[in-house]
Amino acid sequence: MTVAELQYLLGMAGTVAFAATAVAAVAPKRIDLFGALVMGVITAIGGGTIRDLILDVPVFWSQDLNYIWVALAASLVAFIANKQMTGRQVYRAMLYLDAAGVALFAVQAAQKTMDLSFAQPLGPVLLGVITAIGGGLLRDVLAGNDTLLMRKELYAVPVTLGCVTYVSLHAIFPTAGLTVGAFSMLLIFCLRGAAIHWHLYVPDFLLTRPIGSKESQK
Amino acid sequence: MTVAELQYLLGMAGTVAFAATAVAAVAPKRIDLFGALVMGVITAIGGGTIRDLILDVPVFWSQDLNYIWVALAASLVAFIANKQMTGRQVYRAMLYLDAAGVALFAVQAAQKTMDLSFAQPLGPVLLGVITAIGGGLLRDVLAGNDTLLMRKELYAVPVTLGCVTYVSLHAIFPTAGLTVGAFSMLLIFCLRGAAIHWHLYVPDFLLTRPIGSKESQK
Amino acid sequence: MTVAELQYLLGMAGTVAFAATAVAAVAPKRIDLFGALVMGVITAIGGGTIRDLILDVPVFWSQDLNYIWVALAASLVAFIANKQMTGRQVYRAMLYLDAAGVALFAVQAAQKTMDLSFAQPLGPVLLGVITAIGGGLLRDVLAGNDTLLMRKELYAVPVTLGCVTYVSLHAIFPTAGLTVGAFSMLLIFCLRGAAIHWHLYVPDFLLTRPIGSKESQK
Repeated sequence: MTVAELQYLLGMAGTVAFAATAVAAVAPKRIDLFGALVMGVITAIGGGTIRDLILDVPVFWSQDLNYIWVALAASLVAFIANKQMTGRQVYRAMLYLDAAGVALFAVQAAQKTMDLSFAQPLGPVLLGVITAIGGGLLRDVLAGNDTLLMRKELYAVPVTLGCVTYVSLHAIFPTAGLTVGAFSMLLIFCLRGAAIHWHLYVPDFLLTRPIGSKESQK
Repeated sequence: MTVAELQYLLGMAGTVAFAATAVAAVAPKRIDLFGALVMGVITAIGGGTIRDLILDVPVFWSQDLNYIWVALAASLVAFIANKQMTGRQVYRAMLYLDAAGVALFAVQAAQKTMDLSFAQPLGPVLLGVITAIGGGLLRDVLAGNDTLLMRKELYAVPVTLGCVTYVSLHAIFPTAGLTVGAFSMLLIFCLRGAAIHWHLYVPDFLLTRPIGSKESQK
Repeated sequence: MTVAELQYLLGMAGTVAFAATAVAAVAPKRIDLFGALVMGVITAIGGGTIRDLILDVPVFWSQDLNYIWVALAASLVAFIANKQMTGRQVYRAMLYLDAAGVALFAVQAAQKTMDLSFAQPLGPVLLGVITAIGGGLLRDVLAGNDTLLMRKELYAVPVTLGCVTYVSLHAIFPTAGLTVGAFSMLLIFCLRGAAIHWHLYVPDFLLTRPIGSKESQK
């Protein structure tokens, strides 16, 4: 298997994870099958679509509809699964798959932005983060849930660190693109995985202070 | 009257319906005149704008500002009407006009996407749905209302069925574009109209199950 | 200092104000440092990014990353400031700086749209308004706050009046672009400043009527 094939496979696995966790995330609100499919697809392709609009290149899924088919299939399976079983453990497994997807999509987006020499050096970091979390933001806004920007979960921080690492290492070792990419993905996956496994949150001193109190209000 | 002229007239009628129902939908929250105009315009042109950004073609209203003028006028009339009368029956009539607009915009978008050979065969369905419901999604998000993806209303399902029908029939009868288009629009309008008339909802077995119960939580 | 340099400086001051007021606006909800930075950047560049996507030109910050750096720095300072002091007076000063930013960004966007001969004469007004309020709308939606379209604050009305004034005067005095631009900015700033200073709201007769009552429901 070539590196390109491996990346493609990982991309599909990430798509499955994004779509399935999206359906699991909105299911408690009693969404119908159609809504579940739309949410799954938007979450899976939303971030990359915003990235491609900003880069002014054709949206990635218009060149390869497998991303949509896979997202539809994963959403359908997640919808049926939600009706049949508790899904607690499946959801947990999905979280790790989602972490892998986030890691891959962020670094791929940073790489694509670099290849286009777009807004160096900050552009690759910005678009890496937007690609990785954009779909989830759209999902939460459309579902009326708190977006991840308003939660203390360690989600976007690992992504940002990974993108900064990728761009920095790439500047230092310009010929070792593959190694640098793999390392950055691994870094994101491990940080995010640790946050999931040990239920890590952003520490209090990195939170804003609520109005009208030193620390008392919730 | 030519077919193109009829389509144009229908497009303007749909624009009126989208803008006016938007104002009616946000009015209970006490919105001011300016907010009403913005909501009306965004709802009327939002879906088509997202479609054109993804297709990477000039946004449709930049070529023909009548879409904006008509949306502004319809929003203004709806705003004044809201102050003067109950509007219960007008709103109901508007719902049917909105159904006609949705039918027209969905099929027109699918056709535009096909003409550009964009992401066949899934692209026309995706962009048909996005065009038809995108404006309404923006409206609900900006107004802080539940989006239609989270309601049991039969709204997006007729649109999707219509777009799938259009793309399928077009593949079978490639020379009968006009008949196929008219039939698909009629299908969407009748399904959506039936949903409005008989207050049809998505059946329970097509809904996700609430957390921690078999069927008890609301 | 040339006019271009003055405009650039004002643009940076507006970016500072947009980012800092964004952090102040979401801080009561206990956002973490990363969320604060993202909110600051999105608010500062969101409106202009949507404008450039619709105009189909490269997004402005891809040509000059100072907009991002300044937004990041302002967000960081605002985050730290929020932890150390009450910020009541700083916030008030920021509101006026925000008014200056809104005035500048709106007129600059109208001018850019005119220079591209995009959708005359309505396009410059539409994109002026979108540029000035788009970032704030994104911020409020992502933070789960009411958007300014749903508040009675006089915010978008001054912007719209200013853009209409700019486009109208420009049509009458085509050679006096600079004077017309400065006058329109000043108009927006004064109207918005007056609204801040005297706590002006949209009068009741310009609000929609709540359902099921003449005036009683809130």
